[in-house]
Amino acid sequence: MIKIGYIVIDCQEPAAIAKFWEEVLGAKVTFADGTGAMLENLVNLENGDKFPPILFYKNPDAKIIKNRLHFDLSPDDQGAEVLRIEGLGGKRIEIGQSADPATTWVVMADPEGNEFCVLKSPEATS
Amino acid sequence: MIKIGYIVIDCQEPAAIAKFWEEVLGAKVTFADGTGAMLENLVNLENGDKFPPILFYKNPDAKIIKNRLHFDLSPDDQGAEVLRIEGLGGKRIEIGQSADPATTWVVMADPEGNEFCVLKSPEATS
Repeated sequence: MIKIGYIVIDCQEPAAIAKFWEEVLGAKVTFADGTGAMLENLVNLENGDKFPPILFYKNPDAKIIKNRLHFDLSPDDQGAEVLRIEGLGGKRIEIGQSADPATTWVVMADPEGNEFCVLKSPEATS
Repeated sequence: MIKIGYIVIDCQEPAAIAKFWEEVLGAKVTFADGTGAMLENLVNLENGDKFPPILFYKNPDAKIIKNRLHFDLSPDDQGAEVLRIEGLGGKRIEIGQSADPATTWVVMADPEGNEFCVLKSPEATS
């Protein structure tokens, strides 16, 4: 038997990126040193269940191309959360999503350029 | 408030890759069509809590460089799980881990080359 124990994200500055995600997600950095940082107590919006820890792992590799793995974040208020995340150092980015008028999510990146999406609010009609 | 709703993995063949991970993790593909596939009912080994769905999302981009995000899998028996995953189409790969004799995990890749690690068994002493 095997299960997902951790999600690992390569970082050049693990403590800084963990801090960004701590604030975005309301989670808790439980460990940080020069080699990495651990973010725990993550809760999944859909059912209240917990999420495995995210390990931000020191790696000298530069961010070059779009990540093949990313998070879709479920907000209670899409517009307010996008503004809040911009205040934390996140940026709106364009990866081609504007070409599709049906796109309802906002594409953003963390301070090292890792992409994520902010989905539309549950009750939103547009 | 915002939470992780999904983990999204870009795939050239979402249904095939979802099937691979369904078998690796003992989870369930609950949806699959030409645009993507959804894997649900994932449980985190550490505490028995559920994991958000993984959405395998059709994307023509080729896998070029090592992913910056990956899963660390917690097995009950590392050697047996590595063999089982090889039988499902996973491969052992070398990304430099052998240079460190203290490495206790096995680095593998799914059929599209997405890297993941199989950690040592909980009771293993080496």
